[in-house]
Amino acid sequence: MRASAYPLIDADEAAGLVLDHTATLGVEQVRLAECYGRVLADDLVASSPLPAFPSSAVDGYALHAADAGKTLGVLGESAAGRPYLGRLEPGTAARILTGGVVPEGADVVVMIEDVRVDAGRVTVPPGLKAGTNFHKIGDDMGAGDRVLVAGMQLGPAEIGLAAAIGHAELGVRRRPRVALMSTGDELVEVGRPPGPGQIPDSNRWALLAALREAGAEVEVLGIAPDEPEPLRRLVENALGRADVLVTSGGVSVGTHDLVKPLLESLGTVHVGRVKLKPGKPFTFATLNAPGKVAFGLPGFPVSSLVTFEVFVRPALRKMQGFAQLHRPTLPVRLGYDAKPTVERTEYQRVTLHREGAELVAETTGSQSSSRLMSLAGAHALIRVPAGDQGIKAGSVVEAMILTLP
Amino acid sequence: MRASAYPLIDADEAAGLVLDHTATLGVEQVRLAECYGRVLADDLVASSPLPAFPSSAVDGYALHAADAGKTLGVLGESAAGRPYLGRLEPGTAARILTGGVVPEGADVVVMIEDVRVDAGRVTVPPGLKAGTNFHKIGDDMGAGDRVLVAGMQLGPAEIGLAAAIGHAELGVRRRPRVALMSTGDELVEVGRPPGPGQIPDSNRWALLAALREAGAEVEVLGIAPDEPEPLRRLVENALGRADVLVTSGGVSVGTHDLVKPLLESLGTVHVGRVKLKPGKPFTFATLNAPGKVAFGLPGFPVSSLVTFEVFVRPALRKMQGFAQLHRPTLPVRLGYDAKPTVERTEYQRVTLHREGAELVAETTGSQSSSRLMSLAGAHALIRVPAGDQGIKAGSVVEAMILTLP
Repeated sequence: MRASAYPLIDADEAAGLVLDHTATLGVEQVRLAECYGRVLADDLVASSPLPAFPSSAVDGYALHAADAGKTLGVLGESAAGRPYLGRLEPGTAARILTGGVVPEGADVVVMIEDVRVDAGRVTVPPGLKAGTNFHKIGDDMGAGDRVLVAGMQLGPAEIGLAAAIGHAELGVRRRPRVALMSTGDELVEVGRPPGPGQIPDSNRWALLAALREAGAEVEVLGIAPDEPEPLRRLVENALGRADVLVTSGGVSVGTHDLVKPLLESLGTVHVGRVKLKPGKPFTFATLNAPGKVAFGLPGFPVSSLVTFEVFVRPALRKMQGFAQLHRPTLPVRLGYDAKPTVERTEYQRVTLHREGAELVAETTGSQSSSRLMSLAGAHALIRVPAGDQGIKAGSVVEAMILTLP
Repeated sequence: MRASAYPLIDADEAAGLVLDHTATLGVEQVRLAECYGRVLADDLVASSPLPAFPSSAVDGYALHAADAGKTLGVLGESAAGRPYLGRLEPGTAARILTGGVVPEGADVVVMIEDVRVDAGRVTVPPGLKAGTNFHKIGDDMGAGDRVLVAGMQLGPAEIGLAAAIGHAELGVRRRPRVALMSTGDELVEVGRPPGPGQIPDSNRWALLAALREAGAEVEVLGIAPDEPEPLRRLVENALGRADVLVTSGGVSVGTHDLVKPLLESLGTVHVGRVKLKPGKPFTFATLNAPGKVAFGLPGFPVSSLVTFEVFVRPALRKMQGFAQLHRPTLPVRLGYDAKPTVERTEYQRVTLHREGAELVAETTGSQSSSRLMSLAGAHALIRVPAGDQGIKAGSVVEAMILTLP
């Protein structure tokens, strides 16, 4: 047993190294049904105006505004998808339904509630204003308009827009394929009774969820073999398919830790220890296969999820081409004294609640790296700089928002 | 063509009617791998303490604090999953690795960095404090502690916690099964060139994404037949499987609108028109099959998504047992004059940006009900009360947050 050979790196420097070594993945065409949550690869530009035709916003009558106050003959109907085909001359009207094409010649639609109909003729009110109650060609967008921007995540409105301009599929960034492995002689499958000194492999399931939230496709390798050669074969095989290896456990300095030697043999370890609490043993390596990277997360449950948030999630988002790599931040008032850690940046877990217009952050209790209760139901992470200052209750700081209360 | 027979209902009253007629669905047991995003049905209580054994937080040596400053014989090792089985007497030490069981008798762990090792003996520093560097039994939770609360959405930490206390599966609320149908003679499949007066069926794809975000399982029925009997057969068949019918289009007052008569024949229409902009023709019905409901959303793209947000999403979340039915709100300062609509509550779409500690809301431009650009990339909805007051630029209002900037 020896002290670690890796230098302790500043947390921000480590995060920078990770992103510097992370490349955006390629583009794939995906049908609209599968686009939700994906990231648009290229700007989307409208090739023609929308609406493509003047379209009624209401049910009523299309006519000439100059015929205000008159009683007009009704020549036909323009329903949605069933246009009135003739030209509408002055002194005439056509029934029109919401979404129907405003007939050529007409310059106003009068709502059904505002007319009187009698024996096939319609009496319209005085004082009509041309252009009312219908959408003109190009009202919603013009030909050549950039309607969606590369790097946007596709939600309902964005997908609807793409569909409205005729795209049945979209170019999106490929999802990162991640091989997920737990290491540790103490681990047993969740659901089996742990023997003396054993614990359930809970990190696998927490990290699987975190990886999915971050947009990854995950292959679960399970609990790693405890001998170097079988472990190496398993990982090399998985990396034939995966872009990223994520391990939990096995990165501290004990004799039975196999992950760092494995990563050293497969590529280059750029980060081996970080001035971070929780998560000091966090490890990051590039692999010999171009573009492939590995994250060795600490085994303690909170350490693995916090280092995931700080290092892995932004990298997975960069791979997917997200314009925004990091969690949003909001100013929050601390409801507790945030004690610092000497020489380590600390991410403390908090709940948020509203007091008037402010968000107030309260600690989730003991911040022990094994205590997942400190992260369950947490709304945000508070970054406490290394040193001896801490942050006093009542101070306003920027919180990394996980979920709003 | 007639004016609608349905009374115009206040938007809040309509939202209340929808929730009053929505029932929470049943419970199903789901394996951890599929629990992400699901809603916990019942409180989860720990049956035993965690950690279950005193567990080292570091790599080092376990010993008696009373032996501070001495040189001790090293009797063995306690690695994670490979406990040292004997009792540690005063004057002796055991190597211990992170996660290893602290041997019986030992009351302190000294970090590897703080000792000197020589010829099988270890010299430890003076002034050791009992209880240091290891997690005690029950430090993270005690037997009987409530660790997760019914109605929580399961994320990484929550799933990790459930796994850590030995649950390989969890009881979660069943997802609502939704049959989604588009109506309108003007619709063509997205990707086919629209004929005169035709438009792509974009709502299907926007609503599919919105339904998935809200947790539903969706069966896409496609574009509805335009004759009453085939339409009725299709819907009755789908409702044999689905809990919810969602339609878009076909709820305004024109002669070709088939949805309201269909819903009248299948159940009871509780809401037929709402004092809401966009979304006045929104329709809600309970169906004759117990617990099944139908939402008739307007055909204009923005109207369909806004009524989805205001009425459908909270109902789908109630079905899933979410403790929080509604979008979170935050105070934002208006960067524009929000003009009101007489007699209709309006939901205006805004982007948000930070100015100092404040979130400032800017309009997404023309709020036309056909202009999806007003919703693409929007961060929030601003509720503007009916009337003639509006909300002046500079005012602070509560915004419904869709996504943070």
